Amino acid sequence: MTTRPARVLRPPRIAVCGGSSPDAEEMREAEAAGRAIARAGAILVCGGLGGVMAAACRGASDEGGTTIGVLPGRDPAAANPWVGVPLATGMGDARNALVVSFADAVVAVGGAWGTLSEVALARVLERPVVLLRPGLARGLPLPVAADAAAAVEEALAACGVPAAAG
Amino acid sequence: MTTRPARVLRPPRIAVCGGSSPDAEEMREAEAAGRAIARAGAILVCGGLGGVMAAACRGASDEGGTTIGVLPGRDPAAANPWVGVPLATGMGDARNALVVSFADAVVAVGGAWGTLSEVALARVLERPVVLLRPGLARGLPLPVAADAAAAVEEALAACGVPAAAG
Amino acid sequence: MTTRPARVLRPPRIAVCGGSSPDAEEMREAEAAGRAIARAGAILVCGGLGGVMAAACRGASDEGGTTIGVLPGRDPAAANPWVGVPLATGMGDARNALVVSFADAVVAVGGAWGTLSEVALARVLERPVVLLRPGLARGLPLPVAADAAAAVEEALAACGVPAAAG
Amino acid sequence: MTTRPARVLRPPRIAVCGGSSPDAEEMREAEAAGRAIARAGAILVCGGLGGVMAAACRGASDEGGTTIGVLPGRDPAAANPWVGVPLATGMGDARNALVVSFADAVVAVGGAWGTLSEVALARVLERPVVLLRPGLARGLPLPVAADAAAAVEEALAACGVPAAAG
Repeated sequence: MTTRPARVLRPPRIAVCGGSSPDAEEMREAEAAGRAIARAGAILVCGGLGGVMAAACRGASDEGGTTIGVLPGRDPAAANPWVGVPLATGMGDARNALVVSFADAVVAVGGAWGTLSEVALARVLERPVVLLRPGLARGLPLPVAADAAAAVEEALAACGVPAAAG
Repeated sequence: MTTRPARVLRPPRIAVCGGSSPDAEEMREAEAAGRAIARAGAILVCGGLGGVMAAACRGASDEGGTTIGVLPGRDPAAANPWVGVPLATGMGDARNALVVSFADAVVAVGGAWGTLSEVALARVLERPVVLLRPGLARGLPLPVAADAAAAVEEALAACGVPAAAG
Repeated sequence: MTTRPARVLRPPRIAVCGGSSPDAEEMREAEAAGRAIARAGAILVCGGLGGVMAAACRGASDEGGTTIGVLPGRDPAAANPWVGVPLATGMGDARNALVVSFADAVVAVGGAWGTLSEVALARVLERPVVLLRPGLARGLPLPVAADAAAAVEEALAACGVPAAAG
Repeated sequence: MTTRPARVLRPPRIAVCGGSSPDAEEMREAEAAGRAIARAGAILVCGGLGGVMAAACRGASDEGGTTIGVLPGRDPAAANPWVGVPLATGMGDARNALVVSFADAVVAVGGAWGTLSEVALARVLERPVVLLRPGLARGLPLPVAADAAAAVEEALAACGVPAAAG
C-alpha cells in the first residue's frame, strides 16, 4: 500500500453570475471568463441554466475544466449541456445564496435582479466580487474589470491564488 | 354545530428590511413604518434582529400588531423583544430570501449588502418594493417614498389593499 | 406617552405534521390536535397544504387560533383555506426542515416519507416530538400519545408550558 | 477551431450518508463504499464532515475519485481533508435535504436522526436509497445490501448505470 496523502487537492471555485438573456458581448465575456477559470485550474460554479451560465460552462468545458451548476429545480437534467456536475437544489431562487456561497470569489456579467441578488449575497457572505459587466450593480462600491482575463485574475487573487504564468 | 366559515382572515404581510446599525432617522422611519403596518391591520415580517428590525417591531407591537421575525439562527430566543412570532430558520443569510418571500410587499429602510440582497430577491420573486431610505439600493429602478406612511400605503396598495381611512 | 411593555407575548408554537392523504381517523385526530393547540393559546404551525395539515388548521381556526402554513411553493394562495398566515418558502421539500424548526414541539399524525423527514429533522434540531399516529415513524424511540389531547398536552409540557386548566 | 462536443460527461453522483460517530465496522464499510463509488467513475457526495463522511471521502480519494462535501456551515475549510469540492451551504441541518438532492442515489451507513432525515428526504425527492448499515432506518421499507460493493452496485443500477466490469 502506498502512503496516503494527508489531503486532496482543493482547487479554487469561482462563480460566474449573470442573466439568462445576455447580449452578444456579455455571452463572449462569460465564455472567456469560463475559459480563464478552467485554464487557471479553478472550478466554475454557476446557476446551471442558460445565457451567461451556459456560455461560461461552454468556455470552461472547452478547456477541460470542471463545471458545477447549482440549479433552482429538482431535476439535474435541466442543467445546460456543459454542466458536468448538476446540483439540483429544489430551492427555487433561494438557491442564489448557494451559488455564491459555494464559490471563493464571484465574477458578475451583466444581469438583472437575480444577478444583483447574487452580488449582494456574495458580499454578505464576504465573498469577493468582481464586475465584468456591471448590469444593475453599476454604482455599487465594487471593482470593475476591463475584460474577462482581468476579472478572473482579480477573482483568483482575492482567493489567494497567484496569477497563472503566461 | 355552528356553521364553519369557508376560510379564515388572511391579513396582508408587509416586510420591513434594513440594517442592524441604522442612524437615528432610519430608526424613527422604521418604527413609524411598523406602526402604520399594524394600524392598517397588516402583519409585519422582518429579519427578527436589532436595528431597523427591532424598531419596526416596536412600532407594530405598540399598535397591537402581529410581528414575525425570520431569524438566521436556530434559537427563537435570539429575536428582539417585540417579535411575537420568532421563526428560527437555521439557514444563516440564506434566510434573506425567506424574509421577502413571506411578505406580499417590502419596505426597505437604508441598509447595506444584506438589505440590498433582500430588495433584489424581492424583485426576483415579484414582490413589490418601496424604498423609504434607499441605502445601497439608491439608483435602482424602484419607487422611493416620502415618508413611512406613504411607503406603507404604497406597499399595501401594491398588494391590492385600499388605503386605510383617516 | 404610555409605558411601553418590555416585550410582547410570545405564544408557544406547535407543529402538526402528517400526510396529504390521511385516513378518516387521522383526519379526526389532526383536527382535534388543532383544536387543543388553539385552546391552549398556542400557535399552530404546519406545511399549509391538504390532508392532516388542513384538518389541523380547521380545528385551530374553529377555536379562534392562529394558523401558520409553511408552503413548499412561491404562491401563498396555495395554502388551505384555514391558514391565516401563509408563508411561501419556494424551497420545495426542503421546507420540511423549516416546518419543524419554526415550532417549539412537534405532533406527528401518520404520514409517509415527508412526515418521517420532519420527525427526524425535528430531533436533529432538538425539538420534542410526540407521535399521535406513528405512520412510518413506528419503531423509533419516540413517545406515542393515546389521543390528540394527550399529544398536545405532552408537546406543550415539553416546551415548558403547564397543562391548561379544565 | 475544433468541433465542440455536444455536451460534457456527467458522471453519476452517489451520496454516502451516516453519522459523525460511527463504530469501526461502519467506518470500514463507508470507506469501502467510497472506493467502490470512485472505481465506478461516479462522484461521491456527502455532508463533508467527520465519521462516515470522512471515511467515504478517504476511500474515494484513494481511488482518485471526485469528492463533494455539502457542509452545514459557511466555511469551506471545515470540510474533512479528503473533500476536494467543499460546498459551504451556511444552512445548518437544513443542508441534509441538499446532500441527497444533489445525488442520483443514496447509500446510508448507520447513523442516527440526521442520517434518518437524509434517508426520508431522499425518498421524498424520489432518490433511490440502499441501506448498508440500517441504523435508525431499520424497519423501513428499503433495501439492505450485504456489503459496500453490493450497496454501490445497487445504487448505481438504480441510476441506470450498468455494473462495472470485474
